[in-house]
Amino acid sequence: MNTPSPYTFVLFGATGDLSLRKVLPALFRAFRTGQLGSDAAADTGHILAISRKPMDAASYRAWCEEHAREHIKPDVWDEDAWKRFLATIDYMPLDLGREEEFGALAERLIARQGVRIFYLATGPSLFIPICEGLRSAQLNENSRIVLEKPLGHDLASSVAINDAVGAIFREDQIYRIDHYLGKEAVQNLLALRFGNAIFEPLWRRELIESIQITIAEAIGVEGRGEFYEQTGALRDMVQNHLLQLLAIVAMEPPLSMDADAVRDEKLRVLRSLRPLNDETVARNVVRGQYGAGAIDKTAVPAYDDEPGVPADSQTETFVALKVDIDNWRWAGVPFFLRTGKRLGERVAEIVVNYRATPYPLLGEATAHPGANRLVIRLQPDESMRLNCLAKQPGEGMTLQSVHLDLAFDQFFKGHRMDAYERLLLDVINGRLALFVRRDEQEHAWRWVAPIQAHWSRQRKGPKRYAAGTWGPPAASALLAQYGSSWVEEDN
Amino acid sequence: MNTPSPYTFVLFGATGDLSLRKVLPALFRAFRTGQLGSDAAADTGHILAISRKPMDAASYRAWCEEHAREHIKPDVWDEDAWKRFLATIDYMPLDLGREEEFGALAERLIARQGVRIFYLATGPSLFIPICEGLRSAQLNENSRIVLEKPLGHDLASSVAINDAVGAIFREDQIYRIDHYLGKEAVQNLLALRFGNAIFEPLWRRELIESIQITIAEAIGVEGRGEFYEQTGALRDMVQNHLLQLLAIVAMEPPLSMDADAVRDEKLRVLRSLRPLNDETVARNVVRGQYGAGAIDKTAVPAYDDEPGVPADSQTETFVALKVDIDNWRWAGVPFFLRTGKRLGERVAEIVVNYRATPYPLLGEATAHPGANRLVIRLQPDESMRLNCLAKQPGEGMTLQSVHLDLAFDQFFKGHRMDAYERLLLDVINGRLALFVRRDEQEHAWRWVAPIQAHWSRQRKGPKRYAAGTWGPPAASALLAQYGSSWVEEDN
Repeated sequence: MNTPSPYTFVLFGATGDLSLRKVLPALFRAFRTGQLGSDAAADTGHILAISRKPMDAASYRAWCEEHAREHIKPDVWDEDAWKRFLATIDYMPLDLGREEEFGALAERLIARQGVRIFYLATGPSLFIPICEGLRSAQLNENSRIVLEKPLGHDLASSVAINDAVGAIFREDQIYRIDHYLGKEAVQNLLALRFGNAIFEPLWRRELIESIQITIAEAIGVEGRGEFYEQTGALRDMVQNHLLQLLAIVAMEPPLSMDADAVRDEKLRVLRSLRPLNDETVARNVVRGQYGAGAIDKTAVPAYDDEPGVPADSQTETFVALKVDIDNWRWAGVPFFLRTGKRLGERVAEIVVNYRATPYPLLGEATAHPGANRLVIRLQPDESMRLNCLAKQPGEGMTLQSVHLDLAFDQFFKGHRMDAYERLLLDVINGRLALFVRRDEQEHAWRWVAPIQAHWSRQRKGPKRYAAGTWGPPAASALLAQYGSSWVEEDN
Repeated sequence: MNTPSPYTFVLFGATGDLSLRKVLPALFRAFRTGQLGSDAAADTGHILAISRKPMDAASYRAWCEEHAREHIKPDVWDEDAWKRFLATIDYMPLDLGREEEFGALAERLIARQGVRIFYLATGPSLFIPICEGLRSAQLNENSRIVLEKPLGHDLASSVAINDAVGAIFREDQIYRIDHYLGKEAVQNLLALRFGNAIFEPLWRRELIESIQITIAEAIGVEGRGEFYEQTGALRDMVQNHLLQLLAIVAMEPPLSMDADAVRDEKLRVLRSLRPLNDETVARNVVRGQYGAGAIDKTAVPAYDDEPGVPADSQTETFVALKVDIDNWRWAGVPFFLRTGKRLGERVAEIVVNYRATPYPLLGEATAHPGANRLVIRLQPDESMRLNCLAKQPGEGMTLQSVHLDLAFDQFFKGHRMDAYERLLLDVINGRLALFVRRDEQEHAWRWVAPIQAHWSRQRKGPKRYAAGTWGPPAASALLAQYGSSWVEEDN
């Protein structure tokens, strides 16, 4: 563990939901283990919370005490550390509409050494005003800016944000968060692929029948129906998390592990995605919306009965799609992606289905495509399973499915970093590898644009599915077209 | 489970050690589960025990009761089945020196339907007299003959036996037992290699650094010093079991699973073994003999203090060797084989050491050859383990060794066939795949001949090792020459 160089962490939107639930708890976790630097705020790190609300540091700390501590998980709770942590937090009210207030911020920061980190835990409509305010006070030098999703709602709005921010900050100052990239398991996927000699030879079209990537949630919109109405699963999950996971699964070995070398390879995957058109969207993309149903035997309401959601909502809470990667390694291998709320269970996993043996030397059992399968589970637990066929004991040669298992928590005890903690430390330490570069982000938007366009022209909205199921039947029919099925269906 | 066609199982050497400890218990196991056919001996199977001793069936059964039942494991014991089993055993005394007694045997068999199985649980010196006696009574038609190791003590004696037996029985009537081939785990190795699409691509020189095959015993010569003096580890283990395992590990996919298709491929491996000469024997073959030591903290005597062993014995109880396979798949990959008595533990396993990643993208940890390793354990338990590197949780990208595990007994409950049971049933059902063909056997003798010749010319005998260790230090030095080490040394 290295102690960071001096910095000031300026948190815009300090009283918002994101700060409360993610940023402050992650900062506390890192503080608790000494990763934010010494307690003496003047020496190293220092948090400056900012929002519109008129408060002083003491009342902001009291507010944190009241609202934020409940979001810190019991396993990391430490009363003494929490008190010391609060002592490193300063507060300043700031009205974004008044440019001179950024001058006051600059004065506040001038005495402080080191790099300035501006974390924009605000809605995207405030990104441009904040950046312009920072420029007006010449705070865009020796600084980093952190942006959270949604980074726009389509290609045009994303380009507009990137243009505006890019006019003020260089690309290497901009940290676009996709918190999936901060997950330990996603990092581990890179380690498995490029730290071992035995997986790469098995990672190619000659051997792979299809790849599935699932991010399934059991929760619904959790009272945030109004926000979700503006978003939907395509923007909330597909354009960012699912395509980023896809890029990491499918990328070539990078030239190095440097941020840009890794992002160059992810970009190459995104550029290889076969563009969609009306016909292929209709055939290869399924959208769904949950109806009433049950999760863990508890009845839950339909999406359009959630508070803040109009009864005729056409917002999708589920997307399943088939993606083609037109490159040498993956030509002809379908990638099936899906994500949704109110699905059968909370799970994120990558499933690599291997082809059958070239010749059924040991009989037809070996010709079953699922006979060899690698399942890399990212959540709720982190694990790896390799399915293969073995001989049943006894006479003759009858094969049966068995599996090799690896549960990561058997090997790795103790402190686990959560995704936000890792990403915030990366910002503080100036490591860009796990942040999304402008070109990646815009390519992803460009690729989903035909889906957005197609849906906007349809009179019929998403297909209904009962909460607690695995999405509408069309999601299964999608794979059946290609002679495949989702793994939970044939386990 | 199929009921066999009618047969008579004629057991020569019925009061010998092999019959007592292996053949009768295996027949009982198969009988107990109905695999020998119905209890009505006249309908299907029938066991005719033969030895020189004058006895009748009743006294032979009493002898079995007294001596054989103790060799039947408690988990398969069944008093009622045992009684019914004994009732299917007939006995006939036979003096091999008197040809007319084979005429009496023929009369005894003439009334019985089906195939005749002659199991020669005798010393090899009796193989030829028995075969000639059988021919004199025209019992070599519609029959199978089963031979047990040692099938000669060198190439010439092996050829002599094969010539003599081959003059009387066709090759497809001859079942040469190598009981390692009957082991479930060895069968499973074929299933893994050829029933799965994912192992073959990893089974080649481009990815593999070295392969180790170990058959280690903790026991000594168990009172059979006199026998062992005539044998030694090279003949007892290397020429047969170790080279057969090597052949199965290294073979190409066979054209089919037919007996001759599989044996053709094993033969091709044996024919690819780089011939040894004095120089390479001196460099690549290590022999050892155990001295006094401790097994499980119990003191055990040196080999040359065992009963029946002369004090100046030069018999090897340990062999380690490096084998080169000169073919397209394996060129340049060393195979390290070893076997011995009084070693650290009883274990038989195959270890595939993979090369490092082509480029150390994730740092030097990936350049450690043992980072990726497949361990297939045959005994004492049957399991598979795949070592790979994963990321340590936390900041940065530090790799650590983890492993995926498969314990076969988690998947397969219930009755396990032992090796003899399987092989006897294969004889009864006329399946030759798991028996050694003449050409395989002779190629193996031919390959070990330079070792025998070299040793016979040396004044210095085997190197001493303490019982309970992993052989003489020279066994480690052998691998060190090639930049490798035995797995237990770096685990």
